[in-house]
Amino acid sequence: MPAGFIALDWGTTSFRAYLVAPDGAVRDSRASAEGILSVTDGAFEPVFERQIAGWNPALPVLASGMITSRQGWREVPYAAAPAGLAELAAGVARFRTGGGRDVIFVPGVSCRADGGVPDVMRGEETQIIGALDGPSGLFVMRGTHCKWVVVEAGRIVRFATFMTGEMFAVLRGHSILGRLMTGETDEGPGFARGVAAGLAGGAGLLHDLFSVRTLGLFGEMAGDELPTYLSGLLIGSEIAGARRLFAVGTHGVTVIGAPNLAVPFGRALAIAGVAWRFGPPEAAVRGLAKIGGQVGVIG
Amino acid sequence: MPAGFIALDWGTTSFRAYLVAPDGAVRDSRASAEGILSVTDGAFEPVFERQIAGWNPALPVLASGMITSRQGWREVPYAAAPAGLAELAAGVARFRTGGGRDVIFVPGVSCRADGGVPDVMRGEETQIIGALDGPSGLFVMRGTHCKWVVVEAGRIVRFATFMTGEMFAVLRGHSILGRLMTGETDEGPGFARGVAAGLAGGAGLLHDLFSVRTLGLFGEMAGDELPTYLSGLLIGSEIAGARRLFAVGTHGVTVIGAPNLAVPFGRALAIAGVAWRFGPPEAAVRGLAKIGGQVGVIG
Repeated sequence: MPAGFIALDWGTTSFRAYLVAPDGAVRDSRASAEGILSVTDGAFEPVFERQIAGWNPALPVLASGMITSRQGWREVPYAAAPAGLAELAAGVARFRTGGGRDVIFVPGVSCRADGGVPDVMRGEETQIIGALDGPSGLFVMRGTHCKWVVVEAGRIVRFATFMTGEMFAVLRGHSILGRLMTGETDEGPGFARGVAAGLAGGAGLLHDLFSVRTLGLFGEMAGDELPTYLSGLLIGSEIAGARRLFAVGTHGVTVIGAPNLAVPFGRALAIAGVAWRFGPPEAAVRGLAKIGGQVGVIG
Repeated sequence: MPAGFIALDWGTTSFRAYLVAPDGAVRDSRASAEGILSVTDGAFEPVFERQIAGWNPALPVLASGMITSRQGWREVPYAAAPAGLAELAAGVARFRTGGGRDVIFVPGVSCRADGGVPDVMRGEETQIIGALDGPSGLFVMRGTHCKWVVVEAGRIVRFATFMTGEMFAVLRGHSILGRLMTGETDEGPGFARGVAAGLAGGAGLLHDLFSVRTLGLFGEMAGDELPTYLSGLLIGSEIAGARRLFAVGTHGVTVIGAPNLAVPFGRALAIAGVAWRFGPPEAAVRGLAKIGGQVGVIG
């Protein structure tokens, strides 16, 4: 067995690589904004080699995230839910780079909602495998596209994507709702008020969102409070929607994501009266280590 | 009394002016994409004069729309609901232009939802006054920001804005949902499927919208059908939300707006089982004539 491995978590807008010792400890790491969308002409290998320059070329590379998508380095078919460690390991794609590195790509997971509509994830399945400390749980992954994921008997059985993060960005950047926003503050009651409005639902999001405009227009909320109000409104709406799909109270919720996203989401769950906890850090590295062990490339 | 008047419907993204005879007939009209957002340095008068060059300068001008907003020619305070012909007439702002034209600006209308959140319209109130052929009704105004408006005893008593049109534009133009769209067709079941999904609500819009991505990704909906599916999904969600606010079945619905917006919306109402009819054409001109009569500037 080689002395550790390289963990690669390469997403749409970010690159993260970890040099992992045999005992699972992270010895070195690299991060950049070179997500797969910034790589032109399929030149993934040179970007990768430049980022990890100096790391042992004999180490196997275990990778997950959008790098395994059609727009990535190699497309790997989704594993259909239910999918756990065994199914993910069975679905890996192996190849050798031009420079002679062995790369193992972990598949994403797909599922079908009751109405037959597909849903997908790439990368989150690996974080969940890494975060699992029991047979079951309800996980919420924060990011551009948030995922609520039900795990039973160690396998992802169903999940739902919510476009909360992307919706915030496009509404703030490209809609009338961004016009009255001036700076950004977390002070004040804006976030909690937004969460409450989103949870209540009212006449639905297409109506409720207009309050970001009118509260600003009437001077009833400061311009620097409107962004956090919008964020709260979207998150509250997401939680209300997820409650209609999942037995949130039964499971409790494990929240995984960067602190700037996970912390306010936890505040919103608390407002909604939902018990929750943070998942472990570096869940992706832990997940890749488990999958690497399962497929026999790391000890 | 002068021989007719000039009706001006000047919105955020469009300019419309009508030369109206004393009997209410439209003798001439001008339309352009010079909405108030395209006018720089407050130069509304030169744009207006250029558009209506040659029309009798002695005629009074009756105007409504976003031209009366803070970003417009003169800001006119909202009339608070309930507001009908008398309240709108009482709230008009009169001024004389540099060139000596008499202009009468019609106020918009504001209301408060049960939770105290304000809502606003500018221009739609005038269309409703023009479209009213009885003491009460439920009106739906199609546009960037759609309005559902309850009229009782000839007055606008409450209403709700839905950001359906703008949401479609920003999601198509600036989110991942536009990526797989190729051209646009109204053929196929995409629109009806979207309406049904939006009406059902599922886990809410933030989740349901992701189906625009996954149905395309899985090849289960053609790229040229995705735009109309997205449109249907948003409209279905709007109708579901409005039903929670208004007694839709009791009133029946009068739909007002450009045919390219009003016709598909009527299809969606039919799918939802809601009785509806189109409002009269040129409702804004009819409304401005009624208000002009009430304030005594036209005969």
